[in-house]
Amino acid sequence: MSKYDEIPYKIYLDEAEIPDKWYNVRADMKNKPAPLIHPGTLQPLKFEDMQPIFCDELIRQELNETDAYIPIPEPVHNFYKMYRPSPLTHATFLEKALDTPAHIFYKFEGNNTSGSHKLNSAIAQAYYAKEQGLKGVTTETGAGQWGTALSMACAFFGIDCKVYMVKVSYEQKPFRREVMRTYGASVTPSPSMDTNIGRKINAEHPGTTGSLGCAISEAVEVATSMPGYRYVLGSVLNQVLLHQSIIGLETKAACDKYGIKPDIIIGCAGGGSNLGGLIAPFMGEKLRGEADYRIIAIEPASCPSFTRGKFAYDFADTGMVCPMAKMYTLGHDFIPSANHAGGLRYHGMSTILSQLYHDGLMEARSVEQTAVFEAAELFARTEGILPAPESSHAIRAAIDEAIKCRETGEEKTIIFGLTGTGYFDMTAYESYNEGRMNDYVPTDEDLERGFATIPDLGL
Amino acid sequence: MSKYDEIPYKIYLDEAEIPDKWYNVRADMKNKPAPLIHPGTLQPLKFEDMQPIFCDELIRQELNETDAYIPIPEPVHNFYKMYRPSPLTHATFLEKALDTPAHIFYKFEGNNTSGSHKLNSAIAQAYYAKEQGLKGVTTETGAGQWGTALSMACAFFGIDCKVYMVKVSYEQKPFRREVMRTYGASVTPSPSMDTNIGRKINAEHPGTTGSLGCAISEAVEVATSMPGYRYVLGSVLNQVLLHQSIIGLETKAACDKYGIKPDIIIGCAGGGSNLGGLIAPFMGEKLRGEADYRIIAIEPASCPSFTRGKFAYDFADTGMVCPMAKMYTLGHDFIPSANHAGGLRYHGMSTILSQLYHDGLMEARSVEQTAVFEAAELFARTEGILPAPESSHAIRAAIDEAIKCRETGEEKTIIFGLTGTGYFDMTAYESYNEGRMNDYVPTDEDLERGFATIPDLGL
Repeated sequence: MSKYDEIPYKIYLDEAEIPDKWYNVRADMKNKPAPLIHPGTLQPLKFEDMQPIFCDELIRQELNETDAYIPIPEPVHNFYKMYRPSPLTHATFLEKALDTPAHIFYKFEGNNTSGSHKLNSAIAQAYYAKEQGLKGVTTETGAGQWGTALSMACAFFGIDCKVYMVKVSYEQKPFRREVMRTYGASVTPSPSMDTNIGRKINAEHPGTTGSLGCAISEAVEVATSMPGYRYVLGSVLNQVLLHQSIIGLETKAACDKYGIKPDIIIGCAGGGSNLGGLIAPFMGEKLRGEADYRIIAIEPASCPSFTRGKFAYDFADTGMVCPMAKMYTLGHDFIPSANHAGGLRYHGMSTILSQLYHDGLMEARSVEQTAVFEAAELFARTEGILPAPESSHAIRAAIDEAIKCRETGEEKTIIFGLTGTGYFDMTAYESYNEGRMNDYVPTDEDLERGFATIPDLGL
Repeated sequence: MSKYDEIPYKIYLDEAEIPDKWYNVRADMKNKPAPLIHPGTLQPLKFEDMQPIFCDELIRQELNETDAYIPIPEPVHNFYKMYRPSPLTHATFLEKALDTPAHIFYKFEGNNTSGSHKLNSAIAQAYYAKEQGLKGVTTETGAGQWGTALSMACAFFGIDCKVYMVKVSYEQKPFRREVMRTYGASVTPSPSMDTNIGRKINAEHPGTTGSLGCAISEAVEVATSMPGYRYVLGSVLNQVLLHQSIIGLETKAACDKYGIKPDIIIGCAGGGSNLGGLIAPFMGEKLRGEADYRIIAIEPASCPSFTRGKFAYDFADTGMVCPMAKMYTLGHDFIPSANHAGGLRYHGMSTILSQLYHDGLMEARSVEQTAVFEAAELFARTEGILPAPESSHAIRAAIDEAIKCRETGEEKTIIFGLTGTGYFDMTAYESYNEGRMNDYVPTDEDLERGFATIPDLGL
């Protein structure tokens, strides 16, 4: 008889229990995250500096370090009802397969057409753009999760959505592209011939298949040169972590309702949007001294920002068109091996999470690719959900902790974030199924080359 | 103020409200569906005739016309908890877009990794195979929905799963194939060189890309020649409709709980598994004279079994290796135009639904492809779910009924079955997005050629 036998396999909160406010963890942080700075002046970015690029209300949220709770606008809350509350599931089948005394729960964010948690912020960003009377927004997308979420959000509010998709993904992931087009977005392979930067890159590198840095540059150029447009971003930013706090707030509400007391909370970390959202209210309790939790960020061994990066000001993007952020970074020129299939490729990290990690409030761990897909396969077969490679990093760590419990006999409660589904990642699964997966880990020399691109600002 | 304003946008029954019995509509049918007959003897198939091919308990279910309720085994019920109860959603955003007084609800079966309702029967069939002590099962799959569901089910119960996948799909849908392999199934392109029939077809038609009929023949040959294996099928059969009644039972329970009184119930119909499951308990009430509903089957205009077919004994498969069934059929040689992208390609129909339609207990309607994808796009943009092309046939009809209500001012309540998601159907969406969709409808001459293949048995 386990202490959690009485609770349902899947906990769905009632619709009325969807939180009506986001939680802003910065309000409870003693050491605030360092501000974004302008690469030219090295001064903190002010509202006016950001206004040509971002929507006004989103800039206010980006800069807001004081309000712990920010109301969720009613139209966004209504949209949340379409796919939220997301289930908190008791992974009893996985526990049985692992023969562990640990209790494993996961918060599943993949039950929506975008297939991931990205929609939580996309709908908020589209709403504020609409409210400001804008015609549309621009963004970049790599694999396409964020672009899909934003297309859905823009379709719902009836504003235009221009997505610059890294050319190699545009060609290799036509399905993702068609989902976006079905939602009415225009999807342009990047580099394109529509922008100055695109034309320049195409001229200098004929036949290039593009990069996320270049797609960002194109999206920003279009947003700032077309009247009525702004640029939006799906991770890393404070505003995004704010919106994603809905994940953690629902998780916390479900825990409180059913008496679940987590010992360990685990999330995968690329730019930090999922992890930051999942842990927000738990970290808040920890910051206020009300409770303690082990909080663990999981990253790929091939792109180890937390575990092997430097805490320093660096450009937020490879193309050096964005501001600089103080974060754990591998250097803005660092690009993980082409053999890396598991996502989470960003060279840096959310400034909020970077500060929390620097202050010892959370741990980080890196995992290798084959071990991640082994965990994904076991999870798929026992719990019936095919996980995204990104999410599978968290599954790996949860399994490892549960195996430790089997060895020590401890009955720990583990919660992890299952950010999305893997339906559009079958190329990566194919590599795994055929034994072609590669566990590349950068050498110290590889890292040194990346670190050499971090500017020395004397800050 | 609408009569349904007080109910949640999405109705999730409690886990304890998942039905613990399937409902067998045949028990309440005055005119029972005609039995399957042996093509050689023209005699009704008996238990012993089917035993080399099907699992024993499933044959009993296939032949059971008397028990109205059949208990769901506990391990199957436990598996259902992973993804059931599925939500019954009030499509308020779609209603608003249509400016209709109608109330539209949909039962969404796509919230599981197989992406469709097929899992409801796959898990039952895998369970009975396991209980019988079998090593594994074989099946065919075209687009891959059924094969995926069966792979998941077999992985859960730890039995082998051999899928024969039509070669053209195997090559063009590598993602579906990889999902099945991730669940441990072996997936063989059909025709293969593993079977007598496969070798024969390859020899006679070098370079053939296969057909469902051929894949069925291979799967049956393997099941009957390998000790410890049986063949399983994902639609058409009585046992499959029985398992799928879980859809209708949950829908009915949600309606009863929240006071929803449907006037019209709509489902898409290929082989009939989804429609038969959705309508089962409602049809039961109708058969027992307890309530009345308009029940409408929707099929593609390019494969119009109900609306233009003949009610006659015909082979259940193109390859003529299966028994004969009395059903609405276009002739076992009828193959819809290659331009048809919307699924629902089966030439025949469930014998249960055929009898009910023949007895005037349900209606049928056909819809053309472009209109189906227009409905799919509107639904995706308003309700946030990218529907499978199959499901979108039902969406089209629900929208058409809601538009009629706008014109007449009637406040009808419409329920339709949303059988699955379209993530693996983006090639069809691409055709639509690029204006390349084709509304082919077979001519009377085309149909006559199909009808000519219906055997004249004098029955």
